[in-house]
Amino acid sequence: MAFNHKHLINISDYSAEDITRILDTAASFRAVNERRIKKVPTLKGFTVVNMFNEPSTRTRSSFELAEKRLSCDTLNFGGSSTSTVKGESLRDTVQTLCSYKIDAIVVRDKHAGAPRKVADVSGVSVICAGDGKHQHPTQALLDLYTIRERFGRIEGLRVGIVGDIGHSRVCGSLIPALKIMGAHVTVIAPPTLMPAAPEILGADEITCDLDAALPELDVVYMLRIQRERLEGAPYPSLREYNLLFGLTEEREKLMRPEAIVCHPGPVNRGVELDDYMCDHPQRSVILDQVYSGVLVRMAVLYLLLGGTDNGVDA
Amino acid sequence: MAFNHKHLINISDYSAEDITRILDTAASFRAVNERRIKKVPTLKGFTVVNMFNEPSTRTRSSFELAEKRLSCDTLNFGGSSTSTVKGESLRDTVQTLCSYKIDAIVVRDKHAGAPRKVADVSGVSVICAGDGKHQHPTQALLDLYTIRERFGRIEGLRVGIVGDIGHSRVCGSLIPALKIMGAHVTVIAPPTLMPAAPEILGADEITCDLDAALPELDVVYMLRIQRERLEGAPYPSLREYNLLFGLTEEREKLMRPEAIVCHPGPVNRGVELDDYMCDHPQRSVILDQVYSGVLVRMAVLYLLLGGTDNGVDA
Amino acid sequence: MAFNHKHLINISDYSAEDITRILDTAASFRAVNERRIKKVPTLKGFTVVNMFNEPSTRTRSSFELAEKRLSCDTLNFGGSSTSTVKGESLRDTVQTLCSYKIDAIVVRDKHAGAPRKVADVSGVSVICAGDGKHQHPTQALLDLYTIRERFGRIEGLRVGIVGDIGHSRVCGSLIPALKIMGAHVTVIAPPTLMPAAPEILGADEITCDLDAALPELDVVYMLRIQRERLEGAPYPSLREYNLLFGLTEEREKLMRPEAIVCHPGPVNRGVELDDYMCDHPQRSVILDQVYSGVLVRMAVLYLLLGGTDNGVDA
Repeated sequence: MAFNHKHLINISDYSAEDITRILDTAASFRAVNERRIKKVPTLKGFTVVNMFNEPSTRTRSSFELAEKRLSCDTLNFGGSSTSTVKGESLRDTVQTLCSYKIDAIVVRDKHAGAPRKVADVSGVSVICAGDGKHQHPTQALLDLYTIRERFGRIEGLRVGIVGDIGHSRVCGSLIPALKIMGAHVTVIAPPTLMPAAPEILGADEITCDLDAALPELDVVYMLRIQRERLEGAPYPSLREYNLLFGLTEEREKLMRPEAIVCHPGPVNRGVELDDYMCDHPQRSVILDQVYSGVLVRMAVLYLLLGGTDNGVDA
Repeated sequence: MAFNHKHLINISDYSAEDITRILDTAASFRAVNERRIKKVPTLKGFTVVNMFNEPSTRTRSSFELAEKRLSCDTLNFGGSSTSTVKGESLRDTVQTLCSYKIDAIVVRDKHAGAPRKVADVSGVSVICAGDGKHQHPTQALLDLYTIRERFGRIEGLRVGIVGDIGHSRVCGSLIPALKIMGAHVTVIAPPTLMPAAPEILGADEITCDLDAALPELDVVYMLRIQRERLEGAPYPSLREYNLLFGLTEEREKLMRPEAIVCHPGPVNRGVELDDYMCDHPQRSVILDQVYSGVLVRMAVLYLLLGGTDNGVDA
Repeated sequence: MAFNHKHLINISDYSAEDITRILDTAASFRAVNERRIKKVPTLKGFTVVNMFNEPSTRTRSSFELAEKRLSCDTLNFGGSSTSTVKGESLRDTVQTLCSYKIDAIVVRDKHAGAPRKVADVSGVSVICAGDGKHQHPTQALLDLYTIRERFGRIEGLRVGIVGDIGHSRVCGSLIPALKIMGAHVTVIAPPTLMPAAPEILGADEITCDLDAALPELDVVYMLRIQRERLEGAPYPSLREYNLLFGLTEEREKLMRPEAIVCHPGPVNRGVELDDYMCDHPQRSVILDQVYSGVLVRMAVLYLLLGGTDNGVDA
């Protein structure tokens, strides 16, 4: 069955069925890996351009490995070395890339909307790898994969997202993705780290009280804090943040027995999480998320590029 | 039949037969692509080093893709991270590279003559990817390929090269290549952008009057202008340049019905070309040139590395 | 027979039998190359991460080519673009990398002990590619390979290591490796370039008199001098150094007829060696060392990754 999308730009363009198909495909790649088959020839000869206009070692590495394990050729293109420094527009750069007869562009950009713009002027599949605070759909998919692997389902789970909601590049895709899959979402942050209008995020609940929310949660999703952001701020200080919103050994007692802890990485140990929680053998799935990232990116590339041509774009 | 060259350093070392063979080989790779075969195993296990001593995203990307589509292993080597910063000579660096048992070096350098020097001290095939304003032979070959694809021939065509003749890295290979293939070449520029002795370029005609030349041309080859170069200059200003030498919708009326527009990219829209001409569906072959670049670079690598060993160097 | 090591971190963990096995395996890869087979499929699908936390074009290129010729996928990771700039610890970075399901990490770091630390927190094979002045075991192995190729043996040879003993990253692995293989080692340097306690290096003899030592040596191993180090120093000046410790055409007369000259590269021509010695067709094996580097790195990766799983770590 053809996959009905050409791009992955905004997770809200995808249905629960689409997302389930991606997660199932990722699981099949995992099963292949477990039979000690490290690499599949599926996309041999396909060229994927990683167009990273801001640095992101983790996301780029994860995409690059996913591409190589599908036997793609990869071209890293971006940063300050691109022609954009010569005053060429994004449109001209993308059309040049497409003239190389490539098959997909993975786009990371600090400007919200850049991946959509790339898709508009290119004839190839475009995958958003983060555009400012707007979308980061493969992050959301790897989170869903990791959660589903633990609980066997996503529907009906209670997920709390904790921390710097206002500046996170994760929320924009994760909250809609969780809602599409039927989870119940609570956002938890000090008022100073909430966006001006948190209700537009689409969460079911909004609260500043982690301790009150914690006993209800199946998944505690800790966001990364930019230390710089707290250092200049009147409230909370780094120490106050950790005291009120850090997930600590002490606070763990409030968690449900089967509850898990997610984090998009890299963790500020001692701020969002203490070492005990970060390395907790049952609760922490932070390293599972990393592996899930390679698997869901393989799945997305496979479905977008390996499907039939009569797909309808999102 | 063996290809009688080991290197591609100076286009003038090649005969019309040599060039035709490259263009025909490039066309065969295009035909392979059109059968949806993205990659050929011809040079599997061959190692090509891309030694770019000055940045060039487009040319490097194009070579890298050509190498990967021939199944070569590639090694990017160069820039400020090379041992040359430790005071090692180019000769020692090249001999070290060759000791890795590599098969070819693609050289980009700001110094004219660097690729020849690399060839002199290495035992492997050397391809010039631009040495200052001296040579850029694969650019000339992709231009010829693009022109031949449109007109079915190069011989007898009238080609005008317009713009910053004095500082172009394109002219040094393109004009001789066009002459070898039997085209008639006119160079067209304001006196301030002409070289001191334009006659040594080997063009058939030299003029400062684009409007007078345009009605005769089959191919209008617009060179890239460095904005900085005009900004400080007394004449022409950027506006004057566009007025007298820009290819605009208005000026298009002077063109022959079948005439085409080439540009090595990236285009300064509104300077060399206006949007109308840049995106003209019949006349603009600028994006064709990009694809041709991958094809002729595949052809050059294939012929230099895949031929028999009894070739005679240029 | 399984290879009894998981890592290559400190050459002293390896026995003469282990080292001989690596050299024999490298020789078998050489024989494969000579049959014009450029690449073997042995490690297809294995992922090797090159984690270079300080720049090293030569060592990185050599590893990268070794990996590609074994058909590994490679991921270059390191330098200022890694998450370590975001304050993440080495341990967290390594555990993230390992969660990508990689197979080995090649580590270069300015801090002695970093590769051991990486091994302690990762589940995969770790190869030291130089950690400060501590160890550089693949450099030692390529030196042994080159020497053995010339003399057919290492045992009983007299090897002199000349130059900046105190600051060399080569000595820490080369001297123990030579001793394990039964060579006789003399270190030769001006007092100012000797370490404070040269006897801990494990050499058989320590001297400041190159001319007296030279007639006894089978192998003259010249270390690279940092020009900067001599420029400020009271003694020796660059000229004095060359006069007393440089290997020159004049000084060659003191060498045994079959003696060879090694250098880890890049050479400061006119300082450690003059052109005559550097390019000496019989004596100089400097370029052989470069090729040996690819072969022994292939051998190390092959033995560490291709062996059975019941190996015992060093």
